Amino acid sequence: MNPDALLQALRDAVGAANVLTDGDLGAYELDWRRRWRGKALAVVRPGSTGEVAAVVRACAAHGTPLVPQGGNTGMVGGGVPDASGRQVVLSLQRMNRLRRLDADNLTLTVEAGAVLQAVQQMAREAGLWFPLSLAAEGSCTIGGNLATNAGGTQVLRFGNARELCLGLEVVTADGDVWGGLSGLRKDNTGYDLRHLMIGSEGTLGVITAATLKLFPQPAATLTALAACGSLADCLALLRLARSRLDAGLTGFEVMERYALSLVEKHFPALPRPLPGAPWTVLLELADAEGEAPARARLEAMLGAALEQGLVTDAVVAESIAQARGLWHLRESIPLAQAEEGLNIKHDISLPVSAIPAFCASTDAALRAAIPGVQLVNFGHLGDGNLHYNVQAPAGADGAAFLREREDEVNRIVYDAVAAHGGSFSAEHGVGQLKVHEMAERKPPVALAMMKRIKQALDPQGLFNPGRVL
Amino acid sequence: MNPDALLQALRDAVGAANVLTDGDLGAYELDWRRRWRGKALAVVRPGSTGEVAAVVRACAAHGTPLVPQGGNTGMVGGGVPDASGRQVVLSLQRMNRLRRLDADNLTLTVEAGAVLQAVQQMAREAGLWFPLSLAAEGSCTIGGNLATNAGGTQVLRFGNARELCLGLEVVTADGDVWGGLSGLRKDNTGYDLRHLMIGSEGTLGVITAATLKLFPQPAATLTALAACGSLADCLALLRLARSRLDAGLTGFEVMERYALSLVEKHFPALPRPLPGAPWTVLLELADAEGEAPARARLEAMLGAALEQGLVTDAVVAESIAQARGLWHLRESIPLAQAEEGLNIKHDISLPVSAIPAFCASTDAALRAAIPGVQLVNFGHLGDGNLHYNVQAPAGADGAAFLREREDEVNRIVYDAVAAHGGSFSAEHGVGQLKVHEMAERKPPVALAMMKRIKQALDPQGLFNPGRVL
Repeated sequence: MNPDALLQALRDAVGAANVLTDGDLGAYELDWRRRWRGKALAVVRPGSTGEVAAVVRACAAHGTPLVPQGGNTGMVGGGVPDASGRQVVLSLQRMNRLRRLDADNLTLTVEAGAVLQAVQQMAREAGLWFPLSLAAEGSCTIGGNLATNAGGTQVLRFGNARELCLGLEVVTADGDVWGGLSGLRKDNTGYDLRHLMIGSEGTLGVITAATLKLFPQPAATLTALAACGSLADCLALLRLARSRLDAGLTGFEVMERYALSLVEKHFPALPRPLPGAPWTVLLELADAEGEAPARARLEAMLGAALEQGLVTDAVVAESIAQARGLWHLRESIPLAQAEEGLNIKHDISLPVSAIPAFCASTDAALRAAIPGVQLVNFGHLGDGNLHYNVQAPAGADGAAFLREREDEVNRIVYDAVAAHGGSFSAEHGVGQLKVHEMAERKPPVALAMMKRIKQALDPQGLFNPGRVL
Repeated sequence: MNPDALLQALRDAVGAANVLTDGDLGAYELDWRRRWRGKALAVVRPGSTGEVAAVVRACAAHGTPLVPQGGNTGMVGGGVPDASGRQVVLSLQRMNRLRRLDADNLTLTVEAGAVLQAVQQMAREAGLWFPLSLAAEGSCTIGGNLATNAGGTQVLRFGNARELCLGLEVVTADGDVWGGLSGLRKDNTGYDLRHLMIGSEGTLGVITAATLKLFPQPAATLTALAACGSLADCLALLRLARSRLDAGLTGFEVMERYALSLVEKHFPALPRPLPGAPWTVLLELADAEGEAPARARLEAMLGAALEQGLVTDAVVAESIAQARGLWHLRESIPLAQAEEGLNIKHDISLPVSAIPAFCASTDAALRAAIPGVQLVNFGHLGDGNLHYNVQAPAGADGAAFLREREDEVNRIVYDAVAAHGGSFSAEHGVGQLKVHEMAERKPPVALAMMKRIKQALDPQGLFNPGRVL
């Protein structure tokens, strides 16, 4: 590799102003959890698909690895360069245009660098709804959401990011452009390259644009909180809510008492209905009919749950402000954790039916191994996805705990996940953080197929090397 | 290849009784549309995943191609052997067991050879619903449904077969077993091999079992028929129905007058409400609340449509028998076409918004090219999927028409489809029938990626050769 020749080729491709090499590149080189700090050869900011292709060709010609990056909000270090100073960061942030909104087809075509919140807003302005929603929506990009197959709070009804995408435009490792921006709901012409690219974390191609599914805006959205005595009761409530509310049930989050107590401690100004319940469920109903019938349906369902003894108490938000307050409670858990100190995070999924048994046995195993350990357990119960976080015993040093116990804790948790048929990465992906788990825990036959696919589509191995596989 | 040695190896793998070489193998060698008649070296009927793997290894050792087959109900000749007498048909029909039903996880794990209707029944017996539904459900198998990514009548709400599948068990071209029978709704650990296998029509692996999504049974299902003056009105009705009924809207089929007139002609005993409408829409509402509120919602929506002038008349079925009658009308169109004689079938998809313009211009182009040509147009409007079939002018010889005009008609139709951003195969797949269209019409960058993937996963090219690519 000749760095100067490559930098010149990159400047030729995107203009000198969009090839950053000097000054503070921390915004691109450091992930937002501040766990991985890399050093890039350059940060390149193309403004069009053609420029992305030119960048890829230039890097390929110089045998230089590329790290695609969107909003740099990933949880697993998938979007930052390594420390070698040899990798080029390909930032998609300048590519954020709306290409087309087709209301009758309920689709929106947008460039990869568009921020999720802006995409939600584009849909809203057309009287429609793009339901993907997650904590980082103010800065994450749709390209990153698709590259990592993001989850979020609306998966129960709408699926993961991949289920919300009908088509992609992708730059291949050869620097070709695959124009697969389909607005089609059915297309059985060959292998599903779209789903192969989605979730591949930039290791098979660079997503430059996507066609997304939109939905009619609901006539009313209601949020409720319910207090449950156990996870088994939460599960029974989920079953009841699903059968009564069907697809209207768009959210079903659970929070264990300790997780909410951290919110109470660090954000005492937040309203805190139903204090003291072992488990708190946050439910959301999106209704096509209207506020009054929706409220009647939700209250009838909660009434039945009370009668059956599944919940001990429940409140339905009376206003949008109250509803936001309830969601704010849920979304404040990660922030409260950060205030409390370092902890060992797990983004796991399980068959929904296995969750009570998993929690009972894994809680016990961790408490036996680490007396006084504190478990911060919350997540998307309806999707079988828990953020099962492990915090040092009260008074202990969080940094030391992380340093000394992380491997042991991960082994206990991931062994239990595997024993219950679960996954060690539900919605955050693999990135750098879980490459070791991939190698160790993924079935060898699946791993071998993935490696063959990587080799077939990126034979030089220049797209986000060292990630996923 | 030594055929005797291979046959002996196959007998060792599955038992002599399950290696068929003599007698009438027409049920395996001839597709049900009777367009492709092949000649198999043998039909092998394994009874377990291990036996499938042994068959694959035996064929690989002898360099012998394998053609996986389910219920043999495909529309594109993807599941029958070629005429060489050198291919082995791998019938999955004996593998039809229910492996596990997990009601709390809303999943069903079943072997690939289970007939779709039997799978629907397994779900029903647990008080749940497996919504995949299509005309061939009495004989097609779930493995075939997934291998071809089947569509059907419930796609509007539930998506194609791929959206109903959470995990797969697959035998690879090496004869290894990939155990990917996940019951997880979120799993971001590497490339999505499940979606790569689904829709690959047996060219990348043999699906031996699948974990499927189930849903609560609706409290009420209502069916209605509405008369529209134009396709544009049908589209406006779709928009209204979606915003009023949301996910409750599970079906939205359209039928042009001529298509229904064929049903009237060949099945005069069938009830025929709303005769004479240029376009007839069949709507289905699945409701979680109950019969009375569902009927009120559906009637209110149709009332609004009448008021807005989108429909000229409408009926809601008063009983399950009446509802079945309405669906029967829709499902009788292909049978009526078969009675009427040969025709040139197209299973196309388009952006929903493009359908009126597509039909207007393509109808006109066909009528200009072939005076008196008759168009049988019906399909799943909500999915943008039309069965746009072209029939000889009245009195002309159907067989001669097919022989002489098929290429010309296909070119007119598929060129128009491409010009409107559509697909030449919406839900039937590619098989043998559309390999030529794949080569000609698929973007070269996509085709090149598909070929690399095929080469990577089946380097000997023994899985269903000559299909898809």
